[in-house]
Amino acid sequence: MASETITLEGHIIDSLTLPKVLDEILNDGATYELLDLQVGINRDDVSSARIRITASDEDTLGELLDRLQQFGANPEALEDARVVEADADGAFPAGFYSSTNLDTDVRIEGAWVRVDHTEMDCGIVLDAERLRTLPMSEVRKGMQVVMAGRGIRVHQLEKPKGEERQEFEFMSSDISSEKPKALLLEQVAKRLRDVKEKGKRILWVAGPAVVHTGAGPDLCALIRAGYVDAFFAGNGVAAHDIESNMFGTSLGVHLSEGIPAEHGHEHHIRAINEVRRHGSFASAIDAGVFNDGIVYHLIRHGCDFLFGGSVRDDGPLPDVVTDMNEVQTRLRALIWGEGTKRGPGDGNDPVGFCIVVGTMLHGIATGNCLPASVPLVCVDINQATVTKLMDRGSWQSIGVITDLGLFLRELAEDLAPEEVHSPADDARSRRAGSRTRR
Amino acid sequence: MASETITLEGHIIDSLTLPKVLDEILNDGATYELLDLQVGINRDDVSSARIRITASDEDTLGELLDRLQQFGANPEALEDARVVEADADGAFPAGFYSSTNLDTDVRIEGAWVRVDHTEMDCGIVLDAERLRTLPMSEVRKGMQVVMAGRGIRVHQLEKPKGEERQEFEFMSSDISSEKPKALLLEQVAKRLRDVKEKGKRILWVAGPAVVHTGAGPDLCALIRAGYVDAFFAGNGVAAHDIESNMFGTSLGVHLSEGIPAEHGHEHHIRAINEVRRHGSFASAIDAGVFNDGIVYHLIRHGCDFLFGGSVRDDGPLPDVVTDMNEVQTRLRALIWGEGTKRGPGDGNDPVGFCIVVGTMLHGIATGNCLPASVPLVCVDINQATVTKLMDRGSWQSIGVITDLGLFLRELAEDLAPEEVHSPADDARSRRAGSRTRR
Amino acid sequence: MASETITLEGHIIDSLTLPKVLDEILNDGATYELLDLQVGINRDDVSSARIRITASDEDTLGELLDRLQQFGANPEALEDARVVEADADGAFPAGFYSSTNLDTDVRIEGAWVRVDHTEMDCGIVLDAERLRTLPMSEVRKGMQVVMAGRGIRVHQLEKPKGEERQEFEFMSSDISSEKPKALLLEQVAKRLRDVKEKGKRILWVAGPAVVHTGAGPDLCALIRAGYVDAFFAGNGVAAHDIESNMFGTSLGVHLSEGIPAEHGHEHHIRAINEVRRHGSFASAIDAGVFNDGIVYHLIRHGCDFLFGGSVRDDGPLPDVVTDMNEVQTRLRALIWGEGTKRGPGDGNDPVGFCIVVGTMLHGIATGNCLPASVPLVCVDINQATVTKLMDRGSWQSIGVITDLGLFLRELAEDLAPEEVHSPADDARSRRAGSRTRR
Amino acid sequence: MASETITLEGHIIDSLTLPKVLDEILNDGATYELLDLQVGINRDDVSSARIRITASDEDTLGELLDRLQQFGANPEALEDARVVEADADGAFPAGFYSSTNLDTDVRIEGAWVRVDHTEMDCGIVLDAERLRTLPMSEVRKGMQVVMAGRGIRVHQLEKPKGEERQEFEFMSSDISSEKPKALLLEQVAKRLRDVKEKGKRILWVAGPAVVHTGAGPDLCALIRAGYVDAFFAGNGVAAHDIESNMFGTSLGVHLSEGIPAEHGHEHHIRAINEVRRHGSFASAIDAGVFNDGIVYHLIRHGCDFLFGGSVRDDGPLPDVVTDMNEVQTRLRALIWGEGTKRGPGDGNDPVGFCIVVGTMLHGIATGNCLPASVPLVCVDINQATVTKLMDRGSWQSIGVITDLGLFLRELAEDLAPEEVHSPADDARSRRAGSRTRR
Repeated sequence: MASETITLEGHIIDSLTLPKVLDEILNDGATYELLDLQVGINRDDVSSARIRITASDEDTLGELLDRLQQFGANPEALEDARVVEADADGAFPAGFYSSTNLDTDVRIEGAWVRVDHTEMDCGIVLDAERLRTLPMSEVRKGMQVVMAGRGIRVHQLEKPKGEERQEFEFMSSDISSEKPKALLLEQVAKRLRDVKEKGKRILWVAGPAVVHTGAGPDLCALIRAGYVDAFFAGNGVAAHDIESNMFGTSLGVHLSEGIPAEHGHEHHIRAINEVRRHGSFASAIDAGVFNDGIVYHLIRHGCDFLFGGSVRDDGPLPDVVTDMNEVQTRLRALIWGEGTKRGPGDGNDPVGFCIVVGTMLHGIATGNCLPASVPLVCVDINQATVTKLMDRGSWQSIGVITDLGLFLRELAEDLAPEEVHSPADDARSRRAGSRTRR
Repeated sequence: MASETITLEGHIIDSLTLPKVLDEILNDGATYELLDLQVGINRDDVSSARIRITASDEDTLGELLDRLQQFGANPEALEDARVVEADADGAFPAGFYSSTNLDTDVRIEGAWVRVDHTEMDCGIVLDAERLRTLPMSEVRKGMQVVMAGRGIRVHQLEKPKGEERQEFEFMSSDISSEKPKALLLEQVAKRLRDVKEKGKRILWVAGPAVVHTGAGPDLCALIRAGYVDAFFAGNGVAAHDIESNMFGTSLGVHLSEGIPAEHGHEHHIRAINEVRRHGSFASAIDAGVFNDGIVYHLIRHGCDFLFGGSVRDDGPLPDVVTDMNEVQTRLRALIWGEGTKRGPGDGNDPVGFCIVVGTMLHGIATGNCLPASVPLVCVDINQATVTKLMDRGSWQSIGVITDLGLFLRELAEDLAPEEVHSPADDARSRRAGSRTRR
Repeated sequence: MASETITLEGHIIDSLTLPKVLDEILNDGATYELLDLQVGINRDDVSSARIRITASDEDTLGELLDRLQQFGANPEALEDARVVEADADGAFPAGFYSSTNLDTDVRIEGAWVRVDHTEMDCGIVLDAERLRTLPMSEVRKGMQVVMAGRGIRVHQLEKPKGEERQEFEFMSSDISSEKPKALLLEQVAKRLRDVKEKGKRILWVAGPAVVHTGAGPDLCALIRAGYVDAFFAGNGVAAHDIESNMFGTSLGVHLSEGIPAEHGHEHHIRAINEVRRHGSFASAIDAGVFNDGIVYHLIRHGCDFLFGGSVRDDGPLPDVVTDMNEVQTRLRALIWGEGTKRGPGDGNDPVGFCIVVGTMLHGIATGNCLPASVPLVCVDINQATVTKLMDRGSWQSIGVITDLGLFLRELAEDLAPEEVHSPADDARSRRAGSRTRR
Repeated sequence: MASETITLEGHIIDSLTLPKVLDEILNDGATYELLDLQVGINRDDVSSARIRITASDEDTLGELLDRLQQFGANPEALEDARVVEADADGAFPAGFYSSTNLDTDVRIEGAWVRVDHTEMDCGIVLDAERLRTLPMSEVRKGMQVVMAGRGIRVHQLEKPKGEERQEFEFMSSDISSEKPKALLLEQVAKRLRDVKEKGKRILWVAGPAVVHTGAGPDLCALIRAGYVDAFFAGNGVAAHDIESNMFGTSLGVHLSEGIPAEHGHEHHIRAINEVRRHGSFASAIDAGVFNDGIVYHLIRHGCDFLFGGSVRDDGPLPDVVTDMNEVQTRLRALIWGEGTKRGPGDGNDPVGFCIVVGTMLHGIATGNCLPASVPLVCVDINQATVTKLMDRGSWQSIGVITDLGLFLRELAEDLAPEEVHSPADDARSRRAGSRTRR
C-alpha cells in the first residue's frame, strides 16, 4: 500500500473540484480520508481540503496523483520534479509530464518555477533555469524534459470576485453520437430484460420514424415477445403503420424498395379514410382492412395503447383522442396502471421503464408526467431531441443518439430473435424476405 | 389496352413539368407518344404538349391520369366528373378525389366549376352548384362527393413574368434520415460485392467516429475480407485507433465499458509519443507497441493508405503527411492507382468505388479529386455532411444518414461474417467477447 | 451580335439537361431558337436538340458556350482548341479552361482526344499528343495549356439502361444557412410591405423561441405597426410571453440578464395558474395581471388569434383550444377570413402572406391548410424545420435559416422603427433600455 | 432578518447537491453558516450537512426554502403544511405548492404523509388523509390544496450502491439557441471594448461562412476600427473573400442579389489562379487585382495574419502555409506575440481575447494552443461546433449559437458604426448601397 496527502484550495465546493477529486480517487480503486475541510462562508471565501489517499501500490498512486493535478490537487510533499534528457528527436521520453492549459509550477532545486507558454498536451522542457511547454514535434535529443510525478503544481482558474458571472458558460458537452453503440444497445436490452423479469410494465412512446426507417416489423417482434405493455403515440404513427400494411408504402415510399411510390401521398389519406369508414381499429381489423403492423399487434396482443392527436393531423384515425386534456388524463392512467389490461389496473403502480423512440412531442408529454424514479431511455438520430428529453435530473436515464431503424432491428434481434425469424405469420415473413441474413 | 390523350400547358420545360410527367408514365409501365410539343422561344413564352398515353387496362390508366393531375396534366377528353353520395359520417366513399393545394376545376353538367377553399388532402363536395374542399372529419352522410377520374382539371402555379425570381426557393427536401435502413445497407453491401467481383479497387475515407462508435473491429473484419484496397484518413483516426489498442480507450472512453477512462486524455498523447519514438507505424508494430486495429490491419494486409495532417493535429503520428500539396498529390495517386500495391500501379485506372464514413474534411478532399463516374457512398449521422458530399451531380452516389457504429457492424456482418466471428486472432476475439449474440 | 449552334444529346428531358441549358441562356441575356428537338418515346431512348444561340457579342457568347459545356452542350462548329504556353510556375495563363469532373475531349489538329485523369477545377495540359488534367500548383512554365473556348467537348454521365434506378440520390443541396442574410431580410420586409399595401391579411405562426430569444418586444412593435392580422401558436408561446411579462423571465431565464432565474420553472406554472383564475386573457388583462407582451398586444390591437393545444401543455391557458378538430376548423376560418375581425370575415378571401417563425408543429399544421398560391416564409435556426415547411411545391416561398431573435429585431427595425423606439409605453421602454444603440 | 436551519442528507458532495444549495442561497442575497458537515469516506457512505440560512425577511426566506426543496434540502423545523381550500374550478389558490418529480412527504397533523402519483408541475391535494398530485385543470372548488412553505419534504433520488454506474447520463442541456440574443451581443461587444482598452490583442479565427453570409464588409469595418489584431483562417476564407471582391460572388452566389451566378464555380478557381500569378496577396493588391475585402484590409491595416492549408484546398493561394507543423508553430507565435507587428513581438504576451466565427477546424486548432486564461467566444449557427469549442473548462468563455451574418452586422454597428457607414471608401460604399437603412 502507498499513501500521500494532497491539498486542494480555492472554490472547491462550488466549482465542483472536491466532488470530482473524490470521484477520481474512488474510480481508481483507491481510498481517501478527509483530514481537513474548511468551507468558506461567502461565495468569495476560499475553501480548502487536505485529503490522504491510499492506493494499492506506488505506481497506481503516482498515476492517480498525476491525474488529480488537472483539478489543482497537488501533493503536500515537497520534492523536486524529476528531469530527464530527451533520447530522441521529435518525441519525449516515456513517462514525460503531459501539460494542461492551466498555469503550472515545477519545483526545481527547491524553488517553484512557473512554466512559460501555458498550452495543453505538450511536454515541459528546462533550459537555463527557465521552463516552457514544447510540442512533441519540436523535441530535440538532449533537451531536459520534466517527468510526471512529484514536484509539479497546477493552478485552477479562479473565478473573479464580484459581479461578473459565468452566465453563458456551457457546462459540459457530450460525445454521445460517437459513443460505442454496441455497448449502448446491450445496456438497453439488459434493462428491458430486467424490468420484464421483475414483472414491471414497459411503456413505449414512438414517433413515425419507427415506420419510415423500416423498424415496424422489429417493433412487432418486440410486441409478440412481450416487451411492449403500454404504447403512446400520435395519429401519424398509426396512419403510416396502417398505410404501410395496406399499400406497402410509408409516406409514399415503398418500404421494400425504398423508392417513392407513385402518388404515395394519396395512400396516406386513403388509409385513414378507410379505417374511419369502419369506426375503429378493431372493426377495421375484423373487416380485414389490415392484418399486420404495430396497431394490429397492439390490439391482437392486448397491449394498452393511447393515440393522442395534434394540430397537424390528417383525419384523424378513429381511435385517436383529439382533446388534449383527455389525452393527458389517459396518459397518466397508462403510466400509473389505472384501468389497464396489462399490469395492476388499480392506478397505483407506475410503469417500470419508459422508452422513447423518434419523437420529441410525445416524449416531452410523457416526461412531464413521469416520476423521476422511472428510468427513461430516449433513442433518436437528432441530438436536440435526446438532450431535451434527458434533462430531467434523473441519473437512471440513457440517451442514445443513433439510427432508429438499425437500433430497433438489433434490439429485436437481441431480445426476441425467435420472433424476428418466426415463420408462423405469413404476412410478416413475406415482408421479411428481403432481410437476407436472418 | 386503354388509351387517353392529355394536354399540358405552361412553362412545362423549365418548371420540369414535362420530364416529371413522362417519368411518371413510364414508371407506371405505361407508354407515351408525344403527339405535339410546342416549346416557347423566350422564358415568358408558354409551351404546350399533347401526349397520348397507353396503359394495360382502364383501371391503371385511371389511376395514372389521376396522379398526373398534380402536375397540371389534364385529359383532353371532356367528361363530367362523377359525383357520389357520402354513405357515412366522417369519411368519404372509397374512390373519392383527394385534393391538391392547387387551383382546381371540376366539370359539372358540361361546365368547369372552380373549387373553393383550395386545400390539400381533402375531398371535394358539391352543394347547390358550388364546390368546396372538405376535410374528412366534416363529411356528413348524403353529401355529394366528387370521385377521382375524369372531369377534374388542376392548374399549375404560373411563375410571374418579369423580374421577380424564385431565388431562395428550396429545390427539394429529402426524408433520408427516415429511409428504410435495412434496404440501404443491403444496397451498399451489394455494390461493394459487385465492385470487388469486377476486380476494381475500393477506397475508404474515414473519420475518427469509426473508432469512437466502436466500429474499429468491424472495419478490421472488412480489411481482412479484402474490402479495403485504399484508405485515406487524418491523424486522428490513426491516433484513436492506436490509443484504443494500446490502452483500450478512445478519446479517454473505455470502448469495452463506455465509461470515461481516468485521465483518458493523456492516453491519446502518450500513444502518439510512443509511436513517434519508433519512427513509423511499421516499426512500432514490429516492436509490439500495438498488435490490432485499423492501422495494424492496413499494414499487415498490404493495403495502400494515406494519412493527411490538419491544423488541429496532436503530434502528429510519424506516417502522417503534413504538407497539404503532397497530401493531394498522393491522394490522386491513390485514386488513380499510381505506385499502389493493390491494383494496377500504373496510375491510369481509378478506384471502382469510394465509401466515405464519418468525415467531412477528408470526404470533400476526395470528392474534389474523383471523376464523376466513380460511385460514392457517404455514411454519416450528420445530414449536413452527407448533403455536402453528395452534391457532385453524380446519379450513382448514395447518401446514408445513419449511425456509423451500427451501420459498419451490420455491413461487416453481411459482407464478412466469418471474419467478424473469426476465433483466430486472440486480441480480437478477446475484445469481441462482449458481442454476445455473435 | 454573335451566334453559334450547339447540340445536346442524351436523356436531356428527364435528366433536366434541356431546361437547365435554356435557363442558362436566358439568364445570360442571350436568346435561343430550337432548331430541332427529338424526344425519345421510351425511357431508354436518346433525345437530342439543336439550339441556335444569339448573344450580344463574341465575348459573352464565348463565356456562355464555356458554361453550357458542364451540361454536355457542345458547339456544333468544329474547331481546334486553343493551346497556350504557361508563362509562370504554379499558375495557368488567364483564360485557361477550368475542368469539370466529367469525361472531356479536346480537339487537337482535327481529332478529338480524350483527357486523362478526369478531375474538376484543374487545367488541361497537352504533352506529346496526350492530354491530362493538372492542378494549378503543378504547372511549370512552358507547359502547353488548353484555353477556354471552342474545341472542347464534355460528356454527360449516361444513366444505365434497365432496372437500376437512382433511388437514393440527393437532388440538390442548399447553402442557405450561408446565404447573405441582410438580403434575405430586405426581401422578407419588402414582401410584408407589399402585402400590407395591397390590403391583404398577414398570418403569423409562432413558436416559443420568439419569447426565449428576446424577440417578444419586436413582435409587439410589428403588431402595433399593423403587420400582424392573424396569429396562430401553441400554449407555450402564450405561457412564456405572459410569464416574461409577469416575472421578467422566460422558462426561468431572466430576459434582461440572460441568467437562470431562481426557481424560474415555477414562474411558468404560477403564471398559467393565475391567468386560469381569471378565466380568459381579456379578463386577466382587465385585472392587471399583465400589461405588455404578445398576447396583450394581440388583444389590444384587435388581431385575430388562435392558440391550439398539444399533448405536452401545462395548464393549459384558458383561451387555448384543446380539441384538435376544433383547432383545425378555426385555423381554416383564420386563413380564409371567416368571422375574423380583420379582413373580410366572409370566409372567401385567404390571407395574403404567411410567416412561420420558430415552430415546426404549428407551421406544418398551417402548411397543410394553405393554398399553394399563398406565399410562405419560414424562419428558423434549424435547417430541418425550414426544409420540411418549404416542401410544398410553391415557388413563392422563402426559407431562412437564421437566428430568430436577431432576425425579428432587424425586421422590426426595418418595418416599424418608430414603434421599436416609441417612448409611449412605459413598460416597454423600460425593458428596451438595454438596447443601447436604439 | 429571518433565519432557518435546513438539513441535507445523501450523496450531497458527489451528486453536487451541496454546491448547488450554497449557490442558490448566495444568489438570493441570503447568507449561510455551515453548522455541521459530515463527508462520507467511501462512495457509498452518506454525507450530511446542517446549514443555517439568514435572509432579509420572512418572505424571501420562505421562497428560498421552497426552492431549495428541489435539491432535497428540507427545513429542520417541524411544522405542519398549510392546507387551503380551492376557491375556483380549474386553478389552484395563489401560493400553492408546485410539485417536483421527486418523492415528496407532506406533514399533516404531525405525521409525514407520502404524496401519491409523483409528477412535476402539479399541485398537491389532501383527500381523506391521503395526498396526491393533481394537474391544475382537474382542480374543483373546495378541494384541500397544500400551500408552499414549511411541512414539505422532498427526497433526492439515491444512486444505487455497487457496480451500476450512470455511464451515459447527460449532464446538462443548454437552451442556448434560444437565449436572448441582443444581450449576448452586448456582452460580446463589451468584452471586445474592454480588451481593446486594456491594450491587449484580439485574435479572430474565421471560417468561410463569414463571406457567404455577407458579413465580409462588417468584418472589414471592425478591422478599420482596430478590433482585429491577429487573424487565423484557412485558404477558403481568403479565396471566397478575394473572389467576392473580384467578381461580386462567393461560391458562385452573387452577394448583392443572393442568386447563383452563372458559372460561379469558375470564379473561385480563376480568382485563386490570378493571385497565384502575382505570387502574394501584397503583390496582387499592388497590381490592383482586388482593392477591398478582408485580406485587403488585413494587409492595409497592418494586422498579423496566418492562413493555414487543408487537404481540401483549391490552389492554394500563395500566402497559405501548407505544412501543418509550420502552421502550428506560426499559430503559437501569433497567440504569444512572437514577431508580430501588433503587440509585443517578444513572444511572451498572449492575446487578450479570441473570437471564433464560423469554423470548427481552425477553432479547435486554436483552442488546443490557447491557455485556459484567455477568454474565448465562439459564434456559430451549428450547436455542435459551439459545444466542441467551449469544452475547455474555462468559465470565461461564451458560446453563441446564432446567425453569423446578422451577428457580425450588429456587432460592427455597435462597435464601429462610423466605419460601417463611412463614405470614404468608394468600393465599399458601392457595395453597401443595398443596405438601405444605414
